[in-house]
Amino acid sequence: MSRLVFITGGARSGKSSYAQRRCEELPGTLLYVATARVEDAEMAERVTLHQQQRGERWALLEEPLDLSARLPDVTPGRSAVLLDCLTLWLTNQLFAAGEQPVPVIAAAEQLIETLRRLDIPVFVVSNEVGSGIVPDNALARTFRDLAGRVNQLFAASADEAWLLASGLPLRLK
Amino acid sequence: MSRLVFITGGARSGKSSYAQRRCEELPGTLLYVATARVEDAEMAERVTLHQQQRGERWALLEEPLDLSARLPDVTPGRSAVLLDCLTLWLTNQLFAAGEQPVPVIAAAEQLIETLRRLDIPVFVVSNEVGSGIVPDNALARTFRDLAGRVNQLFAASADEAWLLASGLPLRLK
Amino acid sequence: MSRLVFITGGARSGKSSYAQRRCEELPGTLLYVATARVEDAEMAERVTLHQQQRGERWALLEEPLDLSARLPDVTPGRSAVLLDCLTLWLTNQLFAAGEQPVPVIAAAEQLIETLRRLDIPVFVVSNEVGSGIVPDNALARTFRDLAGRVNQLFAASADEAWLLASGLPLRLK
Repeated sequence: MSRLVFITGGARSGKSSYAQRRCEELPGTLLYVATARVEDAEMAERVTLHQQQRGERWALLEEPLDLSARLPDVTPGRSAVLLDCLTLWLTNQLFAAGEQPVPVIAAAEQLIETLRRLDIPVFVVSNEVGSGIVPDNALARTFRDLAGRVNQLFAASADEAWLLASGLPLRLK
Repeated sequence: MSRLVFITGGARSGKSSYAQRRCEELPGTLLYVATARVEDAEMAERVTLHQQQRGERWALLEEPLDLSARLPDVTPGRSAVLLDCLTLWLTNQLFAAGEQPVPVIAAAEQLIETLRRLDIPVFVVSNEVGSGIVPDNALARTFRDLAGRVNQLFAASADEAWLLASGLPLRLK
Repeated sequence: MSRLVFITGGARSGKSSYAQRRCEELPGTLLYVATARVEDAEMAERVTLHQQQRGERWALLEEPLDLSARLPDVTPGRSAVLLDCLTLWLTNQLFAAGEQPVPVIAAAEQLIETLRRLDIPVFVVSNEVGSGIVPDNALARTFRDLAGRVNQLFAASADEAWLLASGLPLRLK
């Protein structure tokens, strides 16, 4: 079973940098899994820039939805996977499921199983979205409930869990 | 003086589950105090479902406002109280007080005194609502200031305080 | 090099009170640096009231923008500085820079250097604003990204960093 490291925190709390540093402590080639949808030229340029900044040790998989299907084929020979981020993947899944959270939770459970079966360490970056005022918008409320529930599933299954604040890690588990 | 355990965290951070597990470590019958207003049939059904899920060890008090008046009469013979949640009670109090926070803070201080005089452990679930962007809406700003101040009062008075994130508890005190 | 203590947390999480208590453990006179813009009589009254509540040990500097220019002249003879708060100063800087974050990050880096050159302990109060749902408003998104990045800069440079929740401090560093 792979080692699962779950990393959460607010926007710009240093989650991705922390995850990247943790991966780079390992030898060998690393796989960066980007879940953002690349929908225009500006976004594509940013993806290329980030990939260049990460450097040669990092391979890239861009996949907004079908992680469970694609990950097993692209991880052999890699020494770790960084999934960045779970929250965008949940957003993509929620839209693909017609804004219904139940199938998304099932997809998240399947993703955890898939990740556990990879035989290399997996670092998952997520987001804290539930510590503000209750949103007016019903879809935003659905999403924050979904994100909270899925974060709990990942953290429960993880070997390590970290909360980032101002770039600094607090160990949850 | 009762033992007071204060449990806070964002939406869907696992606060209620953690509080329930802590209560269920104790022997005897437990009292669940629900502060949500039950205003329609769907809500009533959800309350019944939750009560069934908690099981036979749990008695239920539904009270959106007058906790200080009602708790002393219903706790004798119980081995712990779980108040879920403080934030909804504050919302109900703020509306009952014409959106003025000052009387609500007084009611919160009285509630702490009442809880302290019960001779059984009390678990209070609250919410973090102040770690997003400042809300546009004046009432939302009033509420988040009120919730923050009342959380401070409870945490200061508590014997234990916990911050939940992704279902995992961080000890504050 | 001065000792830098960085204190962050949500709205009404007890950050300022904690910072003030930490300063008051030191002997001598203390400098409170208020970054709020005082724009009407009600605000001016509140500033006066807070200054009276802090008491005689505290001198006051009100400066919404030019901290790097003014601090070196007003700190000699003080035993500590409390900057309250970084987030309002960032707001003021962002408006002064025509809502462009890049010059504000440069100003924040300069402020850290200035604070480090004061030869007395410096306590900086900031805010967590990135743990709610992504705001609809583009300026709010710019601001929360900026605040997160600047919090990381301060925390990286700090000797101590604390996250407040419900009035209780969690040590980040």
